[in-house]
Amino acid sequence: MKTRAAVAFEAGKPLQIVELDLEGPKKGEVLVKITHTALCHTDAFTLSGEDPEGVFPAVLGHEGAGIVVEVGEGVTSVKPGDHVIPLYTAECGECLFCKSGKTNLCVAVRATQGKGVMPDGTTRFSYNGQPVYHYMGCSTFAEHTVVAEVSLAKVNPEANPEHTCLLGCGVTTGIGAVHNTAKVQEGDSVAVFGLGAIGLAVIQGAKQAKAGRIIAIDTNPSKFELAQQMGATECVNPKDHDRPIQQVIVEMTGWGVDHSFECIGNVEVMRAALECAHRGWGQSVIIGVAGAGKEISTRPFQLVTGRKWLGTAFGGVKGRSELPGMVEDAMKGDIQLAPFVTHTLPLERINEAFDLMHEGKSIRTVIHY
Amino acid sequence: MKTRAAVAFEAGKPLQIVELDLEGPKKGEVLVKITHTALCHTDAFTLSGEDPEGVFPAVLGHEGAGIVVEVGEGVTSVKPGDHVIPLYTAECGECLFCKSGKTNLCVAVRATQGKGVMPDGTTRFSYNGQPVYHYMGCSTFAEHTVVAEVSLAKVNPEANPEHTCLLGCGVTTGIGAVHNTAKVQEGDSVAVFGLGAIGLAVIQGAKQAKAGRIIAIDTNPSKFELAQQMGATECVNPKDHDRPIQQVIVEMTGWGVDHSFECIGNVEVMRAALECAHRGWGQSVIIGVAGAGKEISTRPFQLVTGRKWLGTAFGGVKGRSELPGMVEDAMKGDIQLAPFVTHTLPLERINEAFDLMHEGKSIRTVIHY
Repeated sequence: MKTRAAVAFEAGKPLQIVELDLEGPKKGEVLVKITHTALCHTDAFTLSGEDPEGVFPAVLGHEGAGIVVEVGEGVTSVKPGDHVIPLYTAECGECLFCKSGKTNLCVAVRATQGKGVMPDGTTRFSYNGQPVYHYMGCSTFAEHTVVAEVSLAKVNPEANPEHTCLLGCGVTTGIGAVHNTAKVQEGDSVAVFGLGAIGLAVIQGAKQAKAGRIIAIDTNPSKFELAQQMGATECVNPKDHDRPIQQVIVEMTGWGVDHSFECIGNVEVMRAALECAHRGWGQSVIIGVAGAGKEISTRPFQLVTGRKWLGTAFGGVKGRSELPGMVEDAMKGDIQLAPFVTHTLPLERINEAFDLMHEGKSIRTVIHY
Repeated sequence: MKTRAAVAFEAGKPLQIVELDLEGPKKGEVLVKITHTALCHTDAFTLSGEDPEGVFPAVLGHEGAGIVVEVGEGVTSVKPGDHVIPLYTAECGECLFCKSGKTNLCVAVRATQGKGVMPDGTTRFSYNGQPVYHYMGCSTFAEHTVVAEVSLAKVNPEANPEHTCLLGCGVTTGIGAVHNTAKVQEGDSVAVFGLGAIGLAVIQGAKQAKAGRIIAIDTNPSKFELAQQMGATECVNPKDHDRPIQQVIVEMTGWGVDHSFECIGNVEVMRAALECAHRGWGQSVIIGVAGAGKEISTRPFQLVTGRKWLGTAFGGVKGRSELPGMVEDAMKGDIQLAPFVTHTLPLERINEAFDLMHEGKSIRTVIHY
């Protein structure tokens, strides 16, 4: 079949809207009609060419919502008409990791997903007879995409996909990091570095967990109003201080915060986030994705005196088991998604959505097909 | 009174055995006759001059055992004749940290201890009328020392102090790191980097916890026999491999170990220890004390894919509450201390004990007064 898609033909160039050829789903695969997709910094990171795993040409996009059109051989967990969210973190239920009960980092499709191909090593997308690569197992910048069955969460069809597509990455990552990775408890203090979608979702998660102080930190003060609406109790602009931000937070809190979250992908901020954690038990969770080759550093004394350095991918959430419940939470209003959607645009204008993101003007732009 | 002591008059010089003047215990303080002391790399580190907190002249030593001689005003928890182990990590029971239930990092005497003085800001030791500084709140390289009441664990007088002095630092740190910091569970895999007293104690702790594989790692294969006696299931010499040791351990285990422990104080080994931890849930505990200004580094991807970086001081053990029980464990044979004592020497020959340590010939040399 033919499908419209925004294709990244080359690193550093705008996406091009073209019609691709799309093969039907093979064994264990599902053809999904994407109805909505947002874009996230990871898409921009790969498009920039800085992602060492980036392959081109590719259909990017990993924060989407859609409807099953056709299932391949052996697929039993979804059927045509089901509403789904594609998962860049699969959940096979069978691998060492899924069975461990300790992590969401399923390895079922990991190796091929990282190379931009389906589990059989080939692509379903092509253009003029040449393969076009998949991305993060999702490729939601195409009106139709083929996804592994283990990479699909089936969700309530009554939910608003313009909102629930955000649960495909950023919002789930932030909320999950609070509950699954940091395990924030009532009364705990929290510092959130970076007030994009993930940072704002961390704030929502911290509020759900009944955290005490929720300190929101960003160099762009236009983010503070929304952060406060979502539950931040204080907002701090590092540019207003002449000392390192970790020192500011430690002074504000006495000994530092119980939990800090890095939601940017900047290794210097990761260090600051660790170093503002409470002596004795504070922990810092890295959520942001750093540039290729970047390294985090600190004095080991920071850990020896009781701080813990953690990280999270997709907020520790097992997509097929847990996303359906998060969609229900969003429908009940326990997760607010509408405030994240600052802009909507048709697929043809997707490059404007990247511009809005780079200019810091949007939280999320949702693309309608 | 007068007391014999091995004094560090200058950084980088051998200790000198002299007679010091010692004032009696002030309010909240206790005069202790030290009967045995071991020495540890931290004493050597400070003596070398590399410790930025090191002050001279000082009475070093922090791994000792002794008997209470006299108590100062207000002291109620010990009396003359009690057998005690001095604690470089105090336990006041009253501060934010003691009350938290989350850490052993009491702050009651922290600020003054770090400066080499008693809580009132003065020293009890002097030489020719000039102050001689305390060290880590213990100063066990003197036949008599004055210690804060909160820095003394009262232990069973039937225990052998030539062995239990080791619970003042290294052995407790290693065993505590396994149980309190890493919380090793039955069947877990463990890698131990560095087979000095702390590393060997980690192996004992891992065996107590019924760990599965216990992989002992050292560049000095003469350490392997004792490591195996204590419970190591495999020994690895990084020099036998042409690839990074973290890669060797990952290959040996499939995905890495559940827990790794750095027991050296080398920031490159700290990195290796983190990077050989299991994807998804492996954790690495820093125990060794790194040189001044040294920093640990890794790619944040290591944490984002589920590894945790932790540290521990005194193994997370609350000395006054928990050391008495560990002394009982040693008396029952649940903790083996005798194999650590490879040498004994009189105080006059303490500099030979440093030589044995630097040459890698001793695990612990115990000094008899």
